[in-house]
Amino acid sequence: VDLNADVGEGFGTYALTDDAGLLAVVTSANVACGFHGGDPATIARCCALAVRHGVRLGAHVGLRDLHGFGRRRMEVTAAALEEEAAYQVGALVGVARGSGVEVAHLKPHGALYAMAAEDPGKAEALAAAAARAAPVPLALVGPAGSALEDAAAAAGLRFLAEGFADRGYAADGRLLARDRPGALLVGADAAAQARSIALDGVATTAAGTPVVIRAETLCVHGDGQHAVATAAAVRDALRAAGVDVAAPA
Amino acid sequence: VDLNADVGEGFGTYALTDDAGLLAVVTSANVACGFHGGDPATIARCCALAVRHGVRLGAHVGLRDLHGFGRRRMEVTAAALEEEAAYQVGALVGVARGSGVEVAHLKPHGALYAMAAEDPGKAEALAAAAARAAPVPLALVGPAGSALEDAAAAAGLRFLAEGFADRGYAADGRLLARDRPGALLVGADAAAQARSIALDGVATTAAGTPVVIRAETLCVHGDGQHAVATAAAVRDALRAAGVDVAAPA
Amino acid sequence: VDLNADVGEGFGTYALTDDAGLLAVVTSANVACGFHGGDPATIARCCALAVRHGVRLGAHVGLRDLHGFGRRRMEVTAAALEEEAAYQVGALVGVARGSGVEVAHLKPHGALYAMAAEDPGKAEALAAAAARAAPVPLALVGPAGSALEDAAAAAGLRFLAEGFADRGYAADGRLLARDRPGALLVGADAAAQARSIALDGVATTAAGTPVVIRAETLCVHGDGQHAVATAAAVRDALRAAGVDVAAPA
Amino acid sequence: VDLNADVGEGFGTYALTDDAGLLAVVTSANVACGFHGGDPATIARCCALAVRHGVRLGAHVGLRDLHGFGRRRMEVTAAALEEEAAYQVGALVGVARGSGVEVAHLKPHGALYAMAAEDPGKAEALAAAAARAAPVPLALVGPAGSALEDAAAAAGLRFLAEGFADRGYAADGRLLARDRPGALLVGADAAAQARSIALDGVATTAAGTPVVIRAETLCVHGDGQHAVATAAAVRDALRAAGVDVAAPA
Repeated sequence: VDLNADVGEGFGTYALTDDAGLLAVVTSANVACGFHGGDPATIARCCALAVRHGVRLGAHVGLRDLHGFGRRRMEVTAAALEEEAAYQVGALVGVARGSGVEVAHLKPHGALYAMAAEDPGKAEALAAAAARAAPVPLALVGPAGSALEDAAAAAGLRFLAEGFADRGYAADGRLLARDRPGALLVGADAAAQARSIALDGVATTAAGTPVVIRAETLCVHGDGQHAVATAAAVRDALRAAGVDVAAPA
Repeated sequence: VDLNADVGEGFGTYALTDDAGLLAVVTSANVACGFHGGDPATIARCCALAVRHGVRLGAHVGLRDLHGFGRRRMEVTAAALEEEAAYQVGALVGVARGSGVEVAHLKPHGALYAMAAEDPGKAEALAAAAARAAPVPLALVGPAGSALEDAAAAAGLRFLAEGFADRGYAADGRLLARDRPGALLVGADAAAQARSIALDGVATTAAGTPVVIRAETLCVHGDGQHAVATAAAVRDALRAAGVDVAAPA
Repeated sequence: VDLNADVGEGFGTYALTDDAGLLAVVTSANVACGFHGGDPATIARCCALAVRHGVRLGAHVGLRDLHGFGRRRMEVTAAALEEEAAYQVGALVGVARGSGVEVAHLKPHGALYAMAAEDPGKAEALAAAAARAAPVPLALVGPAGSALEDAAAAAGLRFLAEGFADRGYAADGRLLARDRPGALLVGADAAAQARSIALDGVATTAAGTPVVIRAETLCVHGDGQHAVATAAAVRDALRAAGVDVAAPA
Repeated sequence: VDLNADVGEGFGTYALTDDAGLLAVVTSANVACGFHGGDPATIARCCALAVRHGVRLGAHVGLRDLHGFGRRRMEVTAAALEEEAAYQVGALVGVARGSGVEVAHLKPHGALYAMAAEDPGKAEALAAAAARAAPVPLALVGPAGSALEDAAAAAGLRFLAEGFADRGYAADGRLLARDRPGALLVGADAAAQARSIALDGVATTAAGTPVVIRAETLCVHGDGQHAVATAAAVRDALRAAGVDVAAPA
């Protein structure tokens, strides 16, 4: 299984993610592209770290909302979204050329992740950007069974189904809202959920019921003070269980 | 001689340049990349227009100052500038792939144009971005004899010396500040200056003295209500004088 | 009846509204406060014009979305909205002190206007900001019968019911979406609708049916090339019909 | 002597200063107003904390440069600066009304602090904003003997000469640049410098020579992981030396 984290989410003086720590642990990294967070200098640092650690690089495409960190829904047409995503992908590619690293996937961020998982028009817009904005078509990352998976298939793109090691699931397979009890898992709890998803394809809800989670890549969140420790705990637990933790070929 | 204009300088609801009008006249276009102006939807429209009219496309890279439209100097380190430029070039390339058009040159905008013409460190930062951030190395556009010309040579990049059809020159070959009398030329005045530069390599200062201007590309500004008419007058005057108005090969 | 327009919607180099033209015609002006448009220099110019022409000044409070010009819905909590509105009102008051003009009302802009008209929580947030953020409590401007009217009453604020001279109405009394036929009225059409609302309290839908519109203030939009001419046509038509066009006491 | 800190410098998800910790220690606080950092929700939290701890509130006015955190010089005319400062002061006042706390002083931030200390035109612009943008004229905070002191005198404003507890001084009484050895003092070093300035009006340069520092208020910086501990060490050292640590009357 692949282990991915969102990195490069600072902006100017503001830091959010421990990029050096995370990129030493994960096998794939989703780099913020300047809309919900991130800036060229931060991107360049993440690219250099990705090269050093052999981490697979992706574009973490977000809504144009730095103040809300891309976590609140806002109206955007599919046509505008396609160009906004192409801009962000291209910007990452442009900076990444300085490190000689290729961009391999596109993962929407925050509210856009949820919007594109539900809305075929937005999912197709992201797929169109993924298909054209980089030198090679990008894989799309999203929830299994979502509109993103359909859009990837329709566009002939690889799709990477994503599960979350450190977020609680509801009985319908969706993530619990961040302000709900059990929504955020750290350390051993995250490691246990990662192992369960990777080995059995199942997570356990706060109510104790199992829920099927199909995942080729597992996300650990990069913000929060326990992020690197949780990522390392997840990786170590997976390896201890015999799981091959590696980026997709 | 090449005839270039700055286009795509709007932002969201705000329009500044008549992109459809300009791209029907010029042979090269410098597209704002989102820092001093411009946004993905505007870039996409400009790219489509460039394809339709066979216009050569370049990245108009600016300072991160939307409110000041990139026209005021601000401190930026060479290292930061290189990444900010690579980001902008890459973003344009990413959007332009949707139209199948290549990005061929990089021209700094506003205060950055003046800063990079004077400052070898900033010129080298732009040259480094031009050399690496797009699939092929970009030509650099700037004043003849400037630090940009030196930096292009050192980086092995093509350099396109630029003259201005619609801006008055001082005796030292620099542009008059925008608030000085004679700083802005329109219509027949701009056409006459363009012809003089293209045929004789000379412009005439407000004081009536000649000043040598070496130029492979002539700029007509895109903002201002007379922009398209002036651009057409310049093109027509050049052609009437037997000048081949065409983008560089 | 009061005649109001949205003014000061430019940003830096970008202009949108003919502020000098509009402020010579209307009796109230809603000044953009920097979130969806507007900036301190533009605000200062509008305040000086308001003093010269005796125009009543209000805060045109918008969502934090310059690129979308505040016209697209985005999530915002009531608590955050109250502070964002207080910030904008205070900013306008701070600049307006330079002209010695008082801020008298608060009118939400664009998507926020629609959101606050429907959502009691957001309407109460705006009323709370109107009640506290300026030296004197501000009147609230919004559609008759909306959540804004209720919130103003609950907060002890004056409410000014607003009708639109230059926007078409649906049968339910709502504005037609901007992309629908008949959504935007200019010149004599706007003047006729203004007169009908002012004299009879009735507008006519695109389908020809009457719809009751209660309005103490009539809005003419400030953006668009016909804005000043339409505003003047509305004012002249109202006066010709014997209506006293004046700001509320 | 007064002990002041810059607070409220976060933006949305991004945090920078431990506002709760700092406001429990200092006697005056300079609140970021949204241009170099800060936002309405953060301002509101700082105002509530200031009320709880009896801290004197000031506007920390910055350049329009969130990405550079207001720390890099950029061109701004005096006329524009006056309105940008009035906007920021008014915005803080508008939010602060919700806590019933008054704004008492204006302190420029970062590069603007240095620019206004040197340049009479910019100092006068800030003084003009301080004199008019709040319900009562604000005191100006800046270096003793600077253009800000002159501008305050000319405008009839109170001036509060500021020394720095945690920044090293050069022999000419200026602060060492942040990247120089000895530029940043923490803990006991900052406490010792504060005591020396408060009791003797003298600081010691890195070279060991004394430099006269006249200060009615001492600044401890709010960013950096040692900020609160350093602020407390400074306060405790001053009190232990018999200095009355209190905001100006």
